[in-house]
Amino acid sequence: MIHKEEIVKAYQDLQDKICVGLEQIDGGANFIEELWQRDGGGGGKTRILQHGNVIEKGGVNFSAVHGRLPEVIKKTLDTHEDHFFATGVSIVIHPSHPWIPIIHMNIRYFEMNDQVRWFGGGIDLTPHYVIEEDAHFFHQYLKKVCDQFNPGFYSKFKIWADDYFYLKHRKETRGVGGIFYDRLTSQNTDLNWDQLFEFSIILGKSFLPVYSELINRNRHHVISEAHKQWQYQRRSRYVEFNLLYDVGTKFGLETNGRVESILMSLPPQANWVYNHHPEANTAEAKTLSFLKKGISWI
Amino acid sequence: MIHKEEIVKAYQDLQDKICVGLEQIDGGANFIEELWQRDGGGGGKTRILQHGNVIEKGGVNFSAVHGRLPEVIKKTLDTHEDHFFATGVSIVIHPSHPWIPIIHMNIRYFEMNDQVRWFGGGIDLTPHYVIEEDAHFFHQYLKKVCDQFNPGFYSKFKIWADDYFYLKHRKETRGVGGIFYDRLTSQNTDLNWDQLFEFSIILGKSFLPVYSELINRNRHHVISEAHKQWQYQRRSRYVEFNLLYDVGTKFGLETNGRVESILMSLPPQANWVYNHHPEANTAEAKTLSFLKKGISWI
Repeated sequence: MIHKEEIVKAYQDLQDKICVGLEQIDGGANFIEELWQRDGGGGGKTRILQHGNVIEKGGVNFSAVHGRLPEVIKKTLDTHEDHFFATGVSIVIHPSHPWIPIIHMNIRYFEMNDQVRWFGGGIDLTPHYVIEEDAHFFHQYLKKVCDQFNPGFYSKFKIWADDYFYLKHRKETRGVGGIFYDRLTSQNTDLNWDQLFEFSIILGKSFLPVYSELINRNRHHVISEAHKQWQYQRRSRYVEFNLLYDVGTKFGLETNGRVESILMSLPPQANWVYNHHPEANTAEAKTLSFLKKGISWI
Repeated sequence: MIHKEEIVKAYQDLQDKICVGLEQIDGGANFIEELWQRDGGGGGKTRILQHGNVIEKGGVNFSAVHGRLPEVIKKTLDTHEDHFFATGVSIVIHPSHPWIPIIHMNIRYFEMNDQVRWFGGGIDLTPHYVIEEDAHFFHQYLKKVCDQFNPGFYSKFKIWADDYFYLKHRKETRGVGGIFYDRLTSQNTDLNWDQLFEFSIILGKSFLPVYSELINRNRHHVISEAHKQWQYQRRSRYVEFNLLYDVGTKFGLETNGRVESILMSLPPQANWVYNHHPEANTAEAKTLSFLKKGISWI
């Protein structure tokens, strides 16, 4: 049965590979690294790339933290356990080019003791401009990854992503979704612990080929100042989601994680324009029409 | 004993006067108005000014809403009452000039029935660059307002503001504070209801003279691109506060208030730069050194 040390090692390897790959794709800047330690136990390796050719600001973070569970999280998890261990890789990339989508991926493992442990994760796409073929490609790819493990995973985790990456106050999904799952165990799936671990690694490895393809499809699209302004506005919705709803952000801030590592997900620039509504029959209006739950991208 | 209809009328008058005054000070743009109705009861009058000479984006909002209390708020308030009425004026001004501070003011009245009702409010200053004389002026003015009603109000409400306008994750106050108070009643103060109402109105009326003075002191300060970049970064902290901690924002979103009216508080542009630390002995570093609780500005 897979042990946390192996997970930690595999997650760190994955972080290394993804950073090398992203630097190659970007070609204009390198990741800077910060090692940090958490008061209370554990720490992480934060890697940030800014002002690249493609990536305006992106983070590929690894962390492995442990210690006492804050009361507020014990309540959320409905547990009396005092101690936890959590490790994961989190990625958020804000591209400079408005036709390249924002992407987020996270894989994580959490345990309180031998009986209580689980895997979670997800990957979702937030285009500033929704391009239907790209959304199809993205979801097809994820379905193929899921199908290797369980024929029901994709449709279940796709709905979970629609529900999770949702700005309730705006009645708007964050983007075109993807997959999201949490608390997968050998009891509530038909996979054993090794297979659950494998699923998380295969998902992690899908990040580079998926995002490279999306970058290459769109990096030569001609852009205007209006496209940039729209991008800044869409990024403001990303900020709203991450600060109002994102469970990982809340967990990180409440467990005294390193603030700059947690908030690397926030964009380099975001604009709020009062009560802006795009004109009908524009690419912007079309994009908004796709920010709904329940759209099938297969 | 003051009745809610009189409060509503006085708050609307105050909104009118403040908008007229701000337009005069700005001289470059006018407020646009949106009347909105809330599903579930009540509504409001949102007034927004954008792209002025002084004000890059500012809102002066009035609302009076009523209806059923959402479960989550009943829990917060520890009540079994089903119905509420709430009215208030909320102001947030984001100036274009980085040496003019962001300002926020709110006065509000809340009631569930004849026995359970209270006043709340506050005003606080968020300079992009802390100027000590301005912070002194601001706090002196507020102390004078408070002293008319109770010699203990200022020091109590100043501490309350320090605690409320606080970014726990950054260990940083939002700005140089001001005053904040909530749930003032004729039982927990030595004022009767008419006097509590009067206090809220006098505080509201202090907004224009205070902010005019701060604008006029700083509007001719020469600015650089570096000042603007710092301003965008400070605004990102304002976003973090409002989305992570602000009770009014949460209350508004949870009671299905009008999203664009609630989130008018967010700045026109905010930037997140990874792990930015200003150099020692700069105006930026000095500003950060003042973002602490417990500084006496009197």
